[in-house]
Amino acid sequence: MAEFKTVRGMRDFLPAEAKLLRNVESKARSVAKLYGYKEIVTPIVESYDLLSAKAGEEVKSRMFLFKDLGGRDVALRPEFTASVARLVATTLRNEPRPFRLFSVGTIYRYDEPQRGRYREIWQTNYELMGSSRPEADAEILLLTNSFMQAVGLKKFAFKVGHIGVLKGVFAQEQLVENVQSAVMQLMDKKQYEDAFKLLESAGVSEKCMSTLRELVKLKGSDVKGIIDRIADLVKDYEKSVESAKNLSEILNLVVKSKCNIDLTVDAGFARGLEYYTGAIIEVYVPDLDVALAGGGRYDRLIELFGGDPTPAMGIAHGVDRIMLALQEQKRAQNLPQGLNEEKKVLVIPINQDLSGEALHISQMLVNAGVPTELEIMGRKMTKALEDANRRNMSYAVIIGERELKDGNVIVRDLVQRVQTKVKVEDVAEAVRN
Amino acid sequence: MAEFKTVRGMRDFLPAEAKLLRNVESKARSVAKLYGYKEIVTPIVESYDLLSAKAGEEVKSRMFLFKDLGGRDVALRPEFTASVARLVATTLRNEPRPFRLFSVGTIYRYDEPQRGRYREIWQTNYELMGSSRPEADAEILLLTNSFMQAVGLKKFAFKVGHIGVLKGVFAQEQLVENVQSAVMQLMDKKQYEDAFKLLESAGVSEKCMSTLRELVKLKGSDVKGIIDRIADLVKDYEKSVESAKNLSEILNLVVKSKCNIDLTVDAGFARGLEYYTGAIIEVYVPDLDVALAGGGRYDRLIELFGGDPTPAMGIAHGVDRIMLALQEQKRAQNLPQGLNEEKKVLVIPINQDLSGEALHISQMLVNAGVPTELEIMGRKMTKALEDANRRNMSYAVIIGERELKDGNVIVRDLVQRVQTKVKVEDVAEAVRN
Repeated sequence: MAEFKTVRGMRDFLPAEAKLLRNVESKARSVAKLYGYKEIVTPIVESYDLLSAKAGEEVKSRMFLFKDLGGRDVALRPEFTASVARLVATTLRNEPRPFRLFSVGTIYRYDEPQRGRYREIWQTNYELMGSSRPEADAEILLLTNSFMQAVGLKKFAFKVGHIGVLKGVFAQEQLVENVQSAVMQLMDKKQYEDAFKLLESAGVSEKCMSTLRELVKLKGSDVKGIIDRIADLVKDYEKSVESAKNLSEILNLVVKSKCNIDLTVDAGFARGLEYYTGAIIEVYVPDLDVALAGGGRYDRLIELFGGDPTPAMGIAHGVDRIMLALQEQKRAQNLPQGLNEEKKVLVIPINQDLSGEALHISQMLVNAGVPTELEIMGRKMTKALEDANRRNMSYAVIIGERELKDGNVIVRDLVQRVQTKVKVEDVAEAVRN
Repeated sequence: MAEFKTVRGMRDFLPAEAKLLRNVESKARSVAKLYGYKEIVTPIVESYDLLSAKAGEEVKSRMFLFKDLGGRDVALRPEFTASVARLVATTLRNEPRPFRLFSVGTIYRYDEPQRGRYREIWQTNYELMGSSRPEADAEILLLTNSFMQAVGLKKFAFKVGHIGVLKGVFAQEQLVENVQSAVMQLMDKKQYEDAFKLLESAGVSEKCMSTLRELVKLKGSDVKGIIDRIADLVKDYEKSVESAKNLSEILNLVVKSKCNIDLTVDAGFARGLEYYTGAIIEVYVPDLDVALAGGGRYDRLIELFGGDPTPAMGIAHGVDRIMLALQEQKRAQNLPQGLNEEKKVLVIPINQDLSGEALHISQMLVNAGVPTELEIMGRKMTKALEDANRRNMSYAVIIGERELKDGNVIVRDLVQRVQTKVKVEDVAEAVRN
């Protein structure tokens, strides 16, 4: 019989990993609460029409697409934003702005699996809708900073850019939309030379080419210096100048927040998704060459989904990669571990006739909030105690006939290796110390 | 432009529902911890081979089945047990028994949507593997009792049966496997007359027919009385007698646990899944005619998945239905609501030049653990305060130029409608009272 396996690109989280995953999720939920983001839960299966409406060709080509038994074209969501946009354009349409919305769960992309990249991807997702102001962009950045700190990540850095700088140049050159997209995607992959070739073949001006060639070189952590140079370089492109000013406003706010954020401005920074219209953000750690988080402003998306015009800024954090980064930074083990901090108790009846009494006493412990396991294997006392020791349990509660007659049980401290007689009603107390 | 909708059978959880969902999930996780169940997270997409290996025809015919881009036959899991069995038969193969494993997430079944029934179903799932003893069955029942109490459900009752009683009769009559399955499925749907017709046409004996006709009438909360009558009725069917004895042992343990459980024994109780071998359990509430939870013993499943023979008992709790029952029982609002209990603060700069300072102060609050929103709409003070009142926020922190020069801000208590000047460094303190 062939062994059953996970499907390629899918993964199991064993208990230690699952604990870390749920810990990261719980930190994300706390951060959402702190910043006033309400959680929503949308389905993993959505209509292909919705998911493909504003997705680029690349995302579309990698979707888990199929027909359900009713013949509907459906797919597994490749991101959260389309579902959130659907809600904002429909159910939430008449609710007062701004919306601060939080989601967490899995998304699906048929990418080639590699370190930190799976086909089932865990993400936390934050969307701030209804404000076009730089405060909103700054909030998404600072919230991400809070989250990365909350999960215990030490070294991480933000890469920030503005899609409007490049788009302003393209627009003025009247470059057609699909060439713009293709160029952006090449730039997203740092294939600048290919991007330039494509631009040349599309017949953009000499001046544009030289501007772009200089532009993509501009990056660094001297925020004001870099933005001034960007503004100077694109001074003949009206929309690009506006974008540089917007980026400057956002980053000034971030600086004024005094949060001491490690920040690089990168003028040649582009992101794959085509719906971005403004500032874009990614987060990196030194030991990983993939982004831990990515997002940006998408002011036109909601109306493209049939909703009222609603400026918006959002970010998704990649939980799998954050877990990898935590493991790399040897920080995982310092996170609160929940289970391991608590006392664990094994209840053992000395013979099977006492199973019911043992069950009664383990229920007393459970009801008192003490993590308790019952010996259910029918093992002899020595075997059961050996197993409890191997598993680093704290106490064994031993139910014997003689003791029970007097209303007592034996509590064995598995660390100190001593045992005492304890009244049944005092057991919970005894194993908590 | 046509409005985008959720796919039929799929649902959105808006913030209030999402909060309840996560609350139920968190209670399930606490119960898992209390009983020593380790969480594992398995993929939603599994190979069709795995998912169909031990699934009955009915489950198979309702799967979300498709080919991934690599041409693999995959499906969305219709239950957790196959994935857990895969892990136990492979990765966990050499780990010492027993396993106590917990999962939570969505499963997918193409059923006709109705009240409390979706095609994306939220479940919590507990599996206890490695013990064939009645203590294990009792533990799963008591754990479910703890969970139902923990989520705040008032009236709920257990229905308990034993698949071995019916199977013992069928086996002795040498009824072929697929007729057995068909009969069980009809009985699961309470279509007893159809089941009897099928049995007659399969040529079972007169005696068998009359035994079964009497058997399915036996149910009630007098545990001992009912089991005695079952044992008497099936006394000529060896395996059935053993099963009745096993059920009696399990329920004696439950009674001895003194947990005061509302219990009905039902001799005609069957469950749809074909892999059950022993005790079976369901949980009901008065106002809903669907089960909130269902499980049972499946001692042969792990070896059928290629693992070592591993007796096992498991249960799944339907979160959507539990939420519905909670809402019905008007208990939902009494659950700890988290967010609403906490103070919420809106930080408002009196003009835009103070946005950076406002951001700095909201970061101070966030870092002090106070849920805080920044006014990001650029609204005038009156508008912003109106909105904060509408949303039942507790405080507004108003950043003014004059006050800030002296290191102060204004804290407005939105409930008492009074405002005071507070030192910037004391703001967190001031809004926590």
